[in-house]
Amino acid sequence: MKYSQSFIPTLREVPTDAIIVSHRLMFRAGMIRRLGNGLFTYLPLGLRSFRKVEQIIREEMNAIGSLEIKPTVVIPGEFWKESGRWDSMGEALLRVKNRLGADFVVSPTAEEAFTALVRDELSSYRQLPISLYQVNTKYRDEIRPRYGVMRGREFVMKDAYSYDADEESLEKSYQDMGRAYRRIFKRCGLSVISVKADSGAMGGSGSEEFMVESEIGDNTLLFCKNCDYAANVEKADCKPDYTAVSSASASTPPVEKIDTPNVKTIEELCSFLKTGAKTFIKTLVYRAVKVELQGTECEEAFFAVCIRGDLEINEAKLCALLKAAEVSLASEADVVRLTGAPVGFAGPVGLSQLKVIADPTVTAINDGVTGALAKDLHYKHVAYGRDFQAWMTADVRTVKTGDRCSLCGGDLYEKKGNELGHIFKLGYKYTKSMNVSYLDEKGARQIPLSGSYGIGLDRTLASIIEEHHDDAGIIWPLTVAPYHVIIVPIKYDGAMKAVADKLAENLERQGIEVLLDDRDERPGVKFNDADLIGIPYRVVIGDKNLAGESPKVEVKRRSESKSHLVELGKAAGELKEGIMAELAEMS
Amino acid sequence: MKYSQSFIPTLREVPTDAIIVSHRLMFRAGMIRRLGNGLFTYLPLGLRSFRKVEQIIREEMNAIGSLEIKPTVVIPGEFWKESGRWDSMGEALLRVKNRLGADFVVSPTAEEAFTALVRDELSSYRQLPISLYQVNTKYRDEIRPRYGVMRGREFVMKDAYSYDADEESLEKSYQDMGRAYRRIFKRCGLSVISVKADSGAMGGSGSEEFMVESEIGDNTLLFCKNCDYAANVEKADCKPDYTAVSSASASTPPVEKIDTPNVKTIEELCSFLKTGAKTFIKTLVYRAVKVELQGTECEEAFFAVCIRGDLEINEAKLCALLKAAEVSLASEADVVRLTGAPVGFAGPVGLSQLKVIADPTVTAINDGVTGALAKDLHYKHVAYGRDFQAWMTADVRTVKTGDRCSLCGGDLYEKKGNELGHIFKLGYKYTKSMNVSYLDEKGARQIPLSGSYGIGLDRTLASIIEEHHDDAGIIWPLTVAPYHVIIVPIKYDGAMKAVADKLAENLERQGIEVLLDDRDERPGVKFNDADLIGIPYRVVIGDKNLAGESPKVEVKRRSESKSHLVELGKAAGELKEGIMAELAEMS
Repeated sequence: MKYSQSFIPTLREVPTDAIIVSHRLMFRAGMIRRLGNGLFTYLPLGLRSFRKVEQIIREEMNAIGSLEIKPTVVIPGEFWKESGRWDSMGEALLRVKNRLGADFVVSPTAEEAFTALVRDELSSYRQLPISLYQVNTKYRDEIRPRYGVMRGREFVMKDAYSYDADEESLEKSYQDMGRAYRRIFKRCGLSVISVKADSGAMGGSGSEEFMVESEIGDNTLLFCKNCDYAANVEKADCKPDYTAVSSASASTPPVEKIDTPNVKTIEELCSFLKTGAKTFIKTLVYRAVKVELQGTECEEAFFAVCIRGDLEINEAKLCALLKAAEVSLASEADVVRLTGAPVGFAGPVGLSQLKVIADPTVTAINDGVTGALAKDLHYKHVAYGRDFQAWMTADVRTVKTGDRCSLCGGDLYEKKGNELGHIFKLGYKYTKSMNVSYLDEKGARQIPLSGSYGIGLDRTLASIIEEHHDDAGIIWPLTVAPYHVIIVPIKYDGAMKAVADKLAENLERQGIEVLLDDRDERPGVKFNDADLIGIPYRVVIGDKNLAGESPKVEVKRRSESKSHLVELGKAAGELKEGIMAELAEMS
Repeated sequence: MKYSQSFIPTLREVPTDAIIVSHRLMFRAGMIRRLGNGLFTYLPLGLRSFRKVEQIIREEMNAIGSLEIKPTVVIPGEFWKESGRWDSMGEALLRVKNRLGADFVVSPTAEEAFTALVRDELSSYRQLPISLYQVNTKYRDEIRPRYGVMRGREFVMKDAYSYDADEESLEKSYQDMGRAYRRIFKRCGLSVISVKADSGAMGGSGSEEFMVESEIGDNTLLFCKNCDYAANVEKADCKPDYTAVSSASASTPPVEKIDTPNVKTIEELCSFLKTGAKTFIKTLVYRAVKVELQGTECEEAFFAVCIRGDLEINEAKLCALLKAAEVSLASEADVVRLTGAPVGFAGPVGLSQLKVIADPTVTAINDGVTGALAKDLHYKHVAYGRDFQAWMTADVRTVKTGDRCSLCGGDLYEKKGNELGHIFKLGYKYTKSMNVSYLDEKGARQIPLSGSYGIGLDRTLASIIEEHHDDAGIIWPLTVAPYHVIIVPIKYDGAMKAVADKLAENLERQGIEVLLDDRDERPGVKFNDADLIGIPYRVVIGDKNLAGESPKVEVKRRSESKSHLVELGKAAGELKEGIMAELAEMS
């Protein structure tokens, strides 16, 4: 491909909203352009790398026997109503009414579409297991899309779904996917971290996230310094650093109400009472949307959540615990209405209007301090079990650096990460709600188990750039580079033109992808663009090196700082050999 | 690929709404399943052929230097407002509001998205011409989707857009596309008819449609028996079969009102007055939506359209004439309100409340009959020019079999066709409304010309089946077959299994795509499925033919009725040779 005949609008400047390096470089290298908020057009160069990522994913999916299908992007709302997600999914789901008043969604994920297909086609155990996937457009109506294609509204996802007769078969499907994912990321040149994850709104049990470390990652990950424990903070647990008590110790004085004028924060209270935060029972009021309470779905419910004063409540854990669509702190007005006091004075003692959820750390407090449900008043000498009972005791603690590993007791530490892939066992979640069944060997009706497995293509591509770049631009791994080689004649004219054309043709004939910079630009401009767009091999063709008995060209790896001269007659051979060897190594 | 490991749910039965053969066969062959009204999931076998069509299109687009990009499917509504199509497009445009109240469309075509990109990137004449395309999901909210993927709501379209500095360059872009389209359809094994087309809501001048003949085609095409005239009825014209008169002849008596009790149709009127339909001035009241009247856009306007009594008004012509978003017959109530009479008694004489559009055939009537704007009353002795004037005279005639060719006077005849592709010159349509410009050689600001070029992939695939099938199933052209060869061991066991596995492996190693029917089914079932799914080459491996000194296998083309025996040792070679030769011939 000649540079002048492609469309690679490289730029020196970047838009001010391009904060992360992949966004800046994709924009500057002419890979993408902004079409709207969170919406991007891939230009030819960007699309070439995008398609390579897509092809790697497709090959690895096919290799584990998953079959590609293509449902629509616009999906009838009826399926989402059947699964319950029409209501539970929240506003990120783009709902559409068509001209006839029928409901549709622009697919953000496709459990429903796949399950509806399998429901119609599955009749016998002999058809199981089934593993299907698509590589297709998705839309999630992010309120605040950012970081370029890393968190766009429209994106392309590979999503696979497995249907299995039993746990053992599901486990195999799940493990196959995990293996395929590891190969995919390896072939893309990505270092991924695999972590336990909360399966959130998706439900089900058994899940693994494939993360890349990133300063702007929207996931906090916990790792153990000692063992290989790795978990998303949304699910991370830790070794208890408390001892539960079953009743107040004999020495605990009765509860006493104390004046705490103008004391608002836990810090102020600590300094006022001259004690540590660990003796406080922090109590926050949460609003949960679409929560199941004793078997009945409730549109909205409020809870008082108690945790030890030095800790933070983890909303993801709370949300999963309540099987709610969403949880968030209650409004000031709701707090006043439900606790009888302004924000800052809630506590579990005498709290009649709210169900109390207590983190286990609270059950270890037998002489604590907490809000007294009135402005400027707290209780002291509060003991769990004696002065209040929890409606439910459950781990809602946000694990953090310094907590102890639940497996080995080692020190935990935090990193930020971005999720590229997620595999999880759904169990019966969709197959039950959507009435999928088959007849087993004995002719009895059974419900299949299923799993869901996704990889975001746009994010994967952006993450490759995050991991492979320098100040001058992108440094593509060969497997996903838009071209393998860029040929840069110092001037596209005379002998340099003839040599460049011939070398390009020779390489292309052998299946090497070549970009020939035929532009009438200064060499410096061409070199800068070559570095910016990150083509792995650069061949410079200059008059000086061509002159004399043994004409030479200059070959340089984008990832290395030094170039070397190669005899013209050997250049194609050397390049091909190097490229093929490297591609083989990464496959 | 082993049959048992794919997912090819063939069926004997078809849904009752599957009227056309491609819909029936795609369903029966397990290529597609219905997901919703006008929404289909491609299953593995269907998707393989789909991807082959896609690849052929991509290769031919690349071959003419068009560059692939990928805008989003969900497009900001602002661009559609700029172009004016947010209002003019009608209800087939799926409009969506997101959670923040922003307007979007689910793209039915992408003139706006491409033009917005080019507007941002184009600065100099040196960048022109630009030719860009995408292969991407589209949605058109058909009221009555039908015929399977032939007229679905969601579909995939290859749409290309060219931007050129002058007419000559646009002409070249247009001709390049036409040539690429002819190659695409040839490689898909399709016989296409190329016709002049009305460019409808798209505007612009110079367009060509690529049609396949089809009984259920939603286009009527006119052909000349004598020359190569071919046109869509929406644009077809014919040689005048009348002579315009400038005034009533001296012998025409004055207009006279006559009683026509209980006479409603033109036929009844003819028999009542004992005259032919050619003397009637048929007058219909039309409602036009978003029509431009003397430079002002009007939300809704009504017109009386007059044509000679034996002819039909062509709404596509009328719509194009008025540059309206939509035209349709006025409601009964509107007719009464505007003409003062029930439907059936409209006429141009004395009609004050409506603008009259007259087909030229009406200008030739100097002693005609027409409605008298009152129930059961008509006028006779009506003469154009004397008794009424048209606001506008324009060709709105539906040309039909028996009319004369406008080029050579030959007989015209009709066929039904389905549009697979459409190329047209948009001129300045979008570049002007969306303010695209560049600086020419002299530094002067210029607006580029553009063209728009589409091919529907789903329709193309379905049309291949319409053209290539028999009673037993599909007969795939090799270029788009899901697999080249199906190997059918009579029983997948013992020597037959060993031979089948080895042959499959041998062929696959050579790049031949093989489906190996390893199912435990009766040979009849396997043969029927092989015929139904239409794999071009079938190799049957049976014990009898394998026995003896020189083991043989039976090879049969799907398109031929006879099979022949081939020595086992030569089978792979013969198959490969035949397949490669045929692929080369079709390329």
